[in-house]
Amino acid sequence: MQEAPMRARAEALYARLQESICTAAARLDGRAAFGQDAWDRPEGGGGLTRVLQDGAVFEKAAVNVSAVWGPAPPALVEHLRLPDDRRPTTFFATGISMIFHPRSPHAPTFHANLRYFETDTEVSWFGGGCDLTPYALHPDDASHFHEVVRDACARHAVADYRAWKGWCDRYFFLPHRGEARGVGGVFFDHLTGDPDAVLAFQQDLGEALVPAYLPLVERRMGTPVTPDQERWHLQRRGRYVEFNLVHDRGTRFGLQTGGRVESILASLPPRVRFDYDPAPPPEGTPERALLDLVTGPPRDWA
Amino acid sequence: MQEAPMRARAEALYARLQESICTAAARLDGRAAFGQDAWDRPEGGGGLTRVLQDGAVFEKAAVNVSAVWGPAPPALVEHLRLPDDRRPTTFFATGISMIFHPRSPHAPTFHANLRYFETDTEVSWFGGGCDLTPYALHPDDASHFHEVVRDACARHAVADYRAWKGWCDRYFFLPHRGEARGVGGVFFDHLTGDPDAVLAFQQDLGEALVPAYLPLVERRMGTPVTPDQERWHLQRRGRYVEFNLVHDRGTRFGLQTGGRVESILASLPPRVRFDYDPAPPPEGTPERALLDLVTGPPRDWA
Repeated sequence: MQEAPMRARAEALYARLQESICTAAARLDGRAAFGQDAWDRPEGGGGLTRVLQDGAVFEKAAVNVSAVWGPAPPALVEHLRLPDDRRPTTFFATGISMIFHPRSPHAPTFHANLRYFETDTEVSWFGGGCDLTPYALHPDDASHFHEVVRDACARHAVADYRAWKGWCDRYFFLPHRGEARGVGGVFFDHLTGDPDAVLAFQQDLGEALVPAYLPLVERRMGTPVTPDQERWHLQRRGRYVEFNLVHDRGTRFGLQTGGRVESILASLPPRVRFDYDPAPPPEGTPERALLDLVTGPPRDWA
Repeated sequence: MQEAPMRARAEALYARLQESICTAAARLDGRAAFGQDAWDRPEGGGGLTRVLQDGAVFEKAAVNVSAVWGPAPPALVEHLRLPDDRRPTTFFATGISMIFHPRSPHAPTFHANLRYFETDTEVSWFGGGCDLTPYALHPDDASHFHEVVRDACARHAVADYRAWKGWCDRYFFLPHRGEARGVGGVFFDHLTGDPDAVLAFQQDLGEALVPAYLPLVERRMGTPVTPDQERWHLQRRGRYVEFNLVHDRGTRFGLQTGGRVESILASLPPRVRFDYDPAPPPEGTPERALLDLVTGPPRDWA
């Protein structure tokens, strides 16, 4: 029996992950459910956007899949920066991306995506990553997250936790603030090795996301919240907006190439404050420790 | 008696405007005052950032001046897109920029800036503009604003309200949303005519900003607010964030060239909501009329 082509297998993996991750997150939330918006791309393909809003635990969570194809838009050809003899005329891309914004300032925000890409110039590759953005530093949370991700990488010869942890630290960085987005994770792109081996790794990493993240939310969501912590939370969410709109390649590329805007910007936190020059949190608090961490050099967590 | 150089005269004009505009806005607010943050640019120059926060009328207002100079940063040279034989090695830039975010969803947000630029390649020019962003459409407000600006332009041969109104409509437009930012105003750049005449125009326009805008706030600030209007207000403020962070040249250029981040991002609205795919306001409301306006072709207001 012949195996399905890689594009179909990747798309199917992402669909399964979307289902299982939404189920686990909705169960933890207990109040709100994920909606479903299927959309079509006129030039070819489409996606399924699943968003939970105003939950008991999650103020906003989005788990989106898409598979799009067709003539390669000029912006895409530019974006890929391939050698002239490999500039594609058609492309195929599929992926899953997710973001969780808990209500509690004590629980971290979480982002992940996995993606697969093909062009007609016989180039195909995988990319992805995940990262954690706390608002207060709990070193055991950061270590748990990194350990689960590291262990998923360790089971696959195609994965390199050390290198990808560094790539993540460099990518999720706001140059104009001189600040890391959070405690990092892993980031990888243009992974052109054995596709079967990479897909197996992506499946393993995808299945590790729930145990890497949800226990941290469960652990922190019941902690009482002061008005100062709430304000700090909304101010730091502003940094998330700055990163996604000013820097994030996926967001900017999606907006430039006519992607579905509501799906792309589902990543933005639901409530945000942009206060002018706010005072830092008091010394000795986990919020201040977080600020000191993101303005300092990257740290090892696993 | 020899006249001071244009750079000093422009800087002095912007400082006087900052003082008079802050005085008028603080008087209307009645509760909060403008703070003052003077800052230095290590490579040459500096500025004075004046921000009012948590006022009775204005939730956030910023009126900033700066005058900066020195070796032309590579990003600036790129940004200017001058012919190769006029690529500058040094520059001088001074300007005033202001933003007012009223508390009431019935009162519009207002932005304006005036600027003067010199390079060592004997090029000097003026730029500027102003635009109004309502959350509910009141055609008489839009007309008042445009009429005052049109009249200031009409008194000066160097000004062209019609052309600059069109430039403003094209500039303050979010391509990924297919939406105008609001009801527009004027936008002009690279004004290289007689500097004395342009400065006189800038003074006239600068002095027209208070009578163009503050009466609209005064007229609307007492109208009762429903929870739906409040939510719509915060959602539309999200569009302002999208525009400034994704598209606005001044904001992006400032962040890329190491400007003072808190001064640049003082333009962002204080509280914002990014809800996924929110329902439009009901038909027949001023809020829906605003949405229909910004998603339609530009309209003439004066």
